[in-house]
Amino acid sequence: MKELDLELYNVRTDLALEAKELAERPGMGAIPGILSDTTDEDGIKVTVLQVQNEQGSQAIGKMIGHYVTIEVPGLRSGDTELQDRVATQFAKHFESFLERLNISKTARVLVVGLGNWNVTPDALGPLVVENIMVTRHFFELMPDQVAPGYRPVSAVAPGVLGITGIESSEIVQGIAEQSKPDLIIAIDALASKALERVNTTIQIADTGIHPGSGIGNKRKGLTKDILGIPVIAIGVPTVVYASTIVNNTFEMMRNHLEAHKGDPNQIFGLLNQMEDNERLQLVREVLSPLGHDLLVTPKEVDQFIEDIANIIASGLNASLHQAIDTDNVAAYTH
Amino acid sequence: MKELDLELYNVRTDLALEAKELAERPGMGAIPGILSDTTDEDGIKVTVLQVQNEQGSQAIGKMIGHYVTIEVPGLRSGDTELQDRVATQFAKHFESFLERLNISKTARVLVVGLGNWNVTPDALGPLVVENIMVTRHFFELMPDQVAPGYRPVSAVAPGVLGITGIESSEIVQGIAEQSKPDLIIAIDALASKALERVNTTIQIADTGIHPGSGIGNKRKGLTKDILGIPVIAIGVPTVVYASTIVNNTFEMMRNHLEAHKGDPNQIFGLLNQMEDNERLQLVREVLSPLGHDLLVTPKEVDQFIEDIANIIASGLNASLHQAIDTDNVAAYTH
Amino acid sequence: MKELDLELYNVRTDLALEAKELAERPGMGAIPGILSDTTDEDGIKVTVLQVQNEQGSQAIGKMIGHYVTIEVPGLRSGDTELQDRVATQFAKHFESFLERLNISKTARVLVVGLGNWNVTPDALGPLVVENIMVTRHFFELMPDQVAPGYRPVSAVAPGVLGITGIESSEIVQGIAEQSKPDLIIAIDALASKALERVNTTIQIADTGIHPGSGIGNKRKGLTKDILGIPVIAIGVPTVVYASTIVNNTFEMMRNHLEAHKGDPNQIFGLLNQMEDNERLQLVREVLSPLGHDLLVTPKEVDQFIEDIANIIASGLNASLHQAIDTDNVAAYTH
Amino acid sequence: MKELDLELYNVRTDLALEAKELAERPGMGAIPGILSDTTDEDGIKVTVLQVQNEQGSQAIGKMIGHYVTIEVPGLRSGDTELQDRVATQFAKHFESFLERLNISKTARVLVVGLGNWNVTPDALGPLVVENIMVTRHFFELMPDQVAPGYRPVSAVAPGVLGITGIESSEIVQGIAEQSKPDLIIAIDALASKALERVNTTIQIADTGIHPGSGIGNKRKGLTKDILGIPVIAIGVPTVVYASTIVNNTFEMMRNHLEAHKGDPNQIFGLLNQMEDNERLQLVREVLSPLGHDLLVTPKEVDQFIEDIANIIASGLNASLHQAIDTDNVAAYTH
Repeated sequence: MKELDLELYNVRTDLALEAKELAERPGMGAIPGILSDTTDEDGIKVTVLQVQNEQGSQAIGKMIGHYVTIEVPGLRSGDTELQDRVATQFAKHFESFLERLNISKTARVLVVGLGNWNVTPDALGPLVVENIMVTRHFFELMPDQVAPGYRPVSAVAPGVLGITGIESSEIVQGIAEQSKPDLIIAIDALASKALERVNTTIQIADTGIHPGSGIGNKRKGLTKDILGIPVIAIGVPTVVYASTIVNNTFEMMRNHLEAHKGDPNQIFGLLNQMEDNERLQLVREVLSPLGHDLLVTPKEVDQFIEDIANIIASGLNASLHQAIDTDNVAAYTH
Repeated sequence: MKELDLELYNVRTDLALEAKELAERPGMGAIPGILSDTTDEDGIKVTVLQVQNEQGSQAIGKMIGHYVTIEVPGLRSGDTELQDRVATQFAKHFESFLERLNISKTARVLVVGLGNWNVTPDALGPLVVENIMVTRHFFELMPDQVAPGYRPVSAVAPGVLGITGIESSEIVQGIAEQSKPDLIIAIDALASKALERVNTTIQIADTGIHPGSGIGNKRKGLTKDILGIPVIAIGVPTVVYASTIVNNTFEMMRNHLEAHKGDPNQIFGLLNQMEDNERLQLVREVLSPLGHDLLVTPKEVDQFIEDIANIIASGLNASLHQAIDTDNVAAYTH
Repeated sequence: MKELDLELYNVRTDLALEAKELAERPGMGAIPGILSDTTDEDGIKVTVLQVQNEQGSQAIGKMIGHYVTIEVPGLRSGDTELQDRVATQFAKHFESFLERLNISKTARVLVVGLGNWNVTPDALGPLVVENIMVTRHFFELMPDQVAPGYRPVSAVAPGVLGITGIESSEIVQGIAEQSKPDLIIAIDALASKALERVNTTIQIADTGIHPGSGIGNKRKGLTKDILGIPVIAIGVPTVVYASTIVNNTFEMMRNHLEAHKGDPNQIFGLLNQMEDNERLQLVREVLSPLGHDLLVTPKEVDQFIEDIANIIASGLNASLHQAIDTDNVAAYTH
Repeated sequence: MKELDLELYNVRTDLALEAKELAERPGMGAIPGILSDTTDEDGIKVTVLQVQNEQGSQAIGKMIGHYVTIEVPGLRSGDTELQDRVATQFAKHFESFLERLNISKTARVLVVGLGNWNVTPDALGPLVVENIMVTRHFFELMPDQVAPGYRPVSAVAPGVLGITGIESSEIVQGIAEQSKPDLIIAIDALASKALERVNTTIQIADTGIHPGSGIGNKRKGLTKDILGIPVIAIGVPTVVYASTIVNNTFEMMRNHLEAHKGDPNQIFGLLNQMEDNERLQLVREVLSPLGHDLLVTPKEVDQFIEDIANIIASGLNASLHQAIDTDNVAAYTH
């Protein structure tokens, strides 16, 4: 039963942060094997989370590794100055991954934009790829003429199974074998546990992309085990299940009522005594047979996705090329 | 209080069908002043609803007039044969509006595609306009050479206030004064009360477009009163508030539990005794301050909107031009 | 014959600069009624041309008025720093039109983006409209709260006859009657006499838009005579006829050969003795019956149009709103 | 000198048909090693051309192999009935390639759409890929449940060097090694020798894609030598150099004048005595230094490319899957 739940959560949240929140119980203290630290500055909340060992991994259903989550509720307002600050923060944290993985300043990098460019909430990866500053061909064709401060960067959008007929992981594997990068950076759109995180949150993780993650329901992963080189995964939740909206709202209502009017048992009846998990099962049991448990996305998805793709591409360009200044990363993307 | 509720419903549902469902109470019988008839054939459910008088209008918060709602849950599957059948049904019902309004076979028609082409769930109107077979210029430039079976049809997408700085109703009024149509057909994306109706339902109404309706929150309407000519409104719900998803789900859960386990009072506590309305207020009270009561749309919105725009354009082309056969309407659009 | 030629030129070039070049004859000196002054600075060549009287107008087939042409061959290289400088130059010259026409700092402005958004080389106008900072609705809805330094600006893209069935001039007239601007700025894609000017040249003119101009072959104009308010036209050549490419090349070859090898009579035979005009007729006589006299555009048209639309929108935003600094106009557009 | 010319032609035309026309001399009879047969039916002209041996290959600068060229000047008119007939003809001829290459009914096929989806005239390949009916994943995931009449088909759009930093041939090689197709079909946009062939002509060839061909100037090819499996190339000319327009027009003018007025020597002078080749060099000598020898495309390129992509995808779907009827191929694409 435990595994089933974990698998369900896996489908429903790809964020380590949310998985940790789900696993926490009031009064139980920190989860063993999980280190977590949160800072909040000028509307940008950064959580650095480490899954240290197998015990932590079991507890939250996420791989051993480092996860950084950048949450910026204000991103939905379209504030370009805030977007620039987020890109700079992203670049800073991304660089700490490069250092921890011992990726040298000249190591070859392949950026992989997963997802379907015809489905707006799934188009994040391909959009980032379009704004990446690729340089590998200059190193191949005229290595003597490349200015210092750049490394060989390439970028591909492998498409999705329904359009190509080939697993994206197989395509990436083939391309990696030909182009021989030292590091893969994979960008993917995710499902979230919470509507408020949709299009406002970026996760960086050194664990790669695992089967079943992301919107496209991959059946094979992109990991160091498979590819032989490290894979840093960048994910942005862009959709949420209707059922998780409902279940989250229950929780918020309970807290709200508890704070205002007293006894939630009286108001919520048995609902109040259900575990979050159990209640989510109930919600799904009701919604799914009617085809109502859709993945949904905010109405303004077109603009949100474009903004976040620009932030990530700007941040990556600054992190990957020393010649590009992290103080003004936005100038290098459209 | 009553008015406030009606106004709220007005914001939250633009479908007469949903307004009627909201106004109905178990055991209270038919609402006076509301005639309604539903047929269901091969997956296409058609409800013909008439608001006969002021009493009916008050009861459901919708204008006196005729409303036809076509519900096709299967539309989300992308079945082209079903799409063709829906276009044919749409054309048939649309023609009954033309007859009831005494619109002659040669009357001049202006099709108005409301909404924002840059926001996918709001782009329905502009997409329909692109697929309308316009003929007015042929009648103006070479009236002798227009084949029989056509009427003068024009089509415009006036844009939205945030992009033009001008109310779309003012733009339409200006264009109508210049081009002198006998009938306006206005297409708009709507908010729904129910996730399952999003992108699966088409409403035709002879009441025009009223202030505050549609996604774009118009402040002025497109009605016969304002424009001096009849206005048929075609609406498709393409978004839904998170709060209505939650509230609907409560209702479904209650019914589900009642059917399976017994006493909803015990399970739901006081929640069970709340009116739908009261409970919705509670949900909003919780979600809104957190910025969580977003308008959302299904992940596959790009394809859904394109499919429905084609259905409506096909249906309109067949209804407006006798020379185009309702049996094969799809051939005249992209 | 004269009129026929003028009409032909009218179709083939919408640039006053090119019309003047066509009318000039070697050794004939300045054309009476035409004042012209050219400066060239850092790759931006600006020609200020005035058609002073009827004689000048007859001579070059252009209306009496002021024309500024900004030529920037380097625009095709995608240099963003150059783009910013062009936007600043454009703003400076555009402001001189506002002053000359006595348009006050608070006068109401309607920006009209002519053309078809589905045909890339004709999509310039609609693209500019999307990047204009519209403010009219703020002045209408909350006049007390608009910060100083702004004026009421609105913007529409009326579409083209083939899609709307209505002349764009009629649509604009209707909208202007409703929204009552003091000035109209109309942006249109043009045909050029020279491939090298395509997507590298911007013309500003205070003469409005005349029938037959632009790519879309309007049959009615947008002028002060028709609309009762001044119309400033902004045009960018985005296409060129195959026949004008050929004819231009003849001329270039003649000059080239003359400079290098001697007698063009010997090399070109009678071709050499033809008037430019006569030869163009010959080229068309050959190409047209075969359907070869197509309007063509450079392969990279998508990027070129986007870049120039951004330059014009940036320049207009800076010119129209005092609060926006001409030194950094680009920040206000996407 | 000979080789240089051939190389130049190679850059300037990717059509075997045009290469043959260029190599032919009046009164010289058939070129040894080249078999060619042309039929013309209902506006569709089909040329089956075979380069039989090294002598033929040298003569026209094309690889030994089979080439079918389908020319349909009427395609520019947007006639959907004609488009369906062209798709059917294309399917018929494509099937003859499958037979000649002994590709079995169940052989695995990888469709490769070369080109840049952001540059409209270069987006043909990616657009075809989007409309290919891919089935490989069904064969992989549930081989027992695939209906008879289908084969495993996959499809990828590898992007271009400037966006990915990796040669498209390397990407395809990597994907082919992973997915193990028995045949590759590569679709590419080409440069033409003649404006009238742009967007009206489709070439099928069993020679693969060679370095330097297509718009994107590949430096490596997609051939059986490199990939170990046969490669059928499908090409559509979508751009033409300004210089070839000029040079072609000379030729047309000469023929025209000869037919109408007598002595071209008198009219054209020495130009008349130049070889086509020599004259083209002269034209380039004049245009290139001025940056005027641009690749151009017809103004309506957006629609043309979409129409031809649909024709090719429809034809391929019918050819590759027996279950799809060649009589009604269009139904399987958007």
